[in-house]
Amino acid sequence: MPKLILVRHGQSTWNEKNLFTGWVDVRLSAIGEKEANRAGELIKEAGIQVDQLYTSKLSRAIQTANIALSAADQLYVPVKRSWRLNERHYGALQGKDKAQTLEQYGAEKFQIWRRSFDVPPPPIEDDSEFTQVGDVRYNNIDPNVIPKSESLALVIDRMLPYWQDEIAKDLLEGKTVMVAAHGNSLRALVKHLDKISDDDIAGLNIPTGIPLVYELDSKLQPVKPAEYLDPEAAAAGAAAVAAQGQKK
Amino acid sequence: MPKLILVRHGQSTWNEKNLFTGWVDVRLSAIGEKEANRAGELIKEAGIQVDQLYTSKLSRAIQTANIALSAADQLYVPVKRSWRLNERHYGALQGKDKAQTLEQYGAEKFQIWRRSFDVPPPPIEDDSEFTQVGDVRYNNIDPNVIPKSESLALVIDRMLPYWQDEIAKDLLEGKTVMVAAHGNSLRALVKHLDKISDDDIAGLNIPTGIPLVYELDSKLQPVKPAEYLDPEAAAAGAAAVAAQGQKK
Repeated sequence: MPKLILVRHGQSTWNEKNLFTGWVDVRLSAIGEKEANRAGELIKEAGIQVDQLYTSKLSRAIQTANIALSAADQLYVPVKRSWRLNERHYGALQGKDKAQTLEQYGAEKFQIWRRSFDVPPPPIEDDSEFTQVGDVRYNNIDPNVIPKSESLALVIDRMLPYWQDEIAKDLLEGKTVMVAAHGNSLRALVKHLDKISDDDIAGLNIPTGIPLVYELDSKLQPVKPAEYLDPEAAAAGAAAVAAQGQKK
Repeated sequence: MPKLILVRHGQSTWNEKNLFTGWVDVRLSAIGEKEANRAGELIKEAGIQVDQLYTSKLSRAIQTANIALSAADQLYVPVKRSWRLNERHYGALQGKDKAQTLEQYGAEKFQIWRRSFDVPPPPIEDDSEFTQVGDVRYNNIDPNVIPKSESLALVIDRMLPYWQDEIAKDLLEGKTVMVAAHGNSLRALVKHLDKISDDDIAGLNIPTGIPLVYELDSKLQPVKPAEYLDPEAAAAGAAAVAAQGQKK
């Protein structure tokens, strides 16, 4: 039976500072590394053998996967990386303090950009120090697809083709697949799998560093609700993520 | 111009204890992790952009690559792994103390197994605690190809097809390729590239953790002798490797 394990990367240095990150390539904080290690221990304790790993092109997701698979004694797992699993591009907000943005634009716009389904923030300027124009990691893709800003709807649009062509293929072969990615690329995937409506997805918060396990049937439908490997920590983590926008 | 960077993994916990390792999946020691980090710094200082990474299926080579690419700020590099890049299989010697083997079998046999071109050590028993029979990381390959013991000649035989089909393809596309692997799988590759004779290869010692850079022409011939990114450390490292068999 195909199994899918989703792991959201742990705390980054910019999460710590409460900055909008998006496609900016920041690293895990010391706490984030610990979370990744715990994720790997949970996978090991659950006796899960990963057959194929997928990551985004961003270091914090790759670090999470590397540390977790090391802790799970499965460093040898084959891996594919794609920009299609990247975090939502936060446009002009990238590099900005969340509390500052809240103050500057007001709670309404802030909440719309953060949680609305299809309203992207203002686009990033090409000469911003936080632009991805010219980033060598995207050298082998059509430069026109590098976003300047994304809503969750746009994330779904660019993530789903990768799910359909690559990840689904491995699952249909019966493999156990792990995806190490980001809050919004994973929300996009969970929305698809659990058929969550455009309205309800705003309320879904995926905690960091706790593997979420789907068992799927031959049509890649969940046979039961997905389960976190540490449900108590997951509940506490989701509440913390939900409260994040309110922090000063 | 295609560029090939070879990195031999740093010190493992079993190198530290002077044990024959081969396909046993031991980790890097603290010193080995430092070496890997230094390798990544050298790659960064040299301004090398890696387009494709290859590793063996063994954790110590994968750790080396992960740590080095993290230090080089290139965690996003796509990666392929193959058992064909694994260390030489040391047969019945795996898990044995080198000094003890020397004493038990005598200096002559020891030196033959260690350095002869085509005499493999005695085969490992399937019920040995150090066998690879049943190791899930080799689940997707024909079980008959998992070696019970290998000479350097046998390593060349199983490594070259991977070079020809996979690594060469990337190089012919003009990519910069990094291979993180082992003393003997890299000796096999260097022997091929530099056309070293069966007799002379015994004298070649590749130091750990120092990137060796080949610039290749369109026929994948070196345009000049390969260069270590830190030549002084490489010379000292090669001498240390050569002296290793003599340690008590």
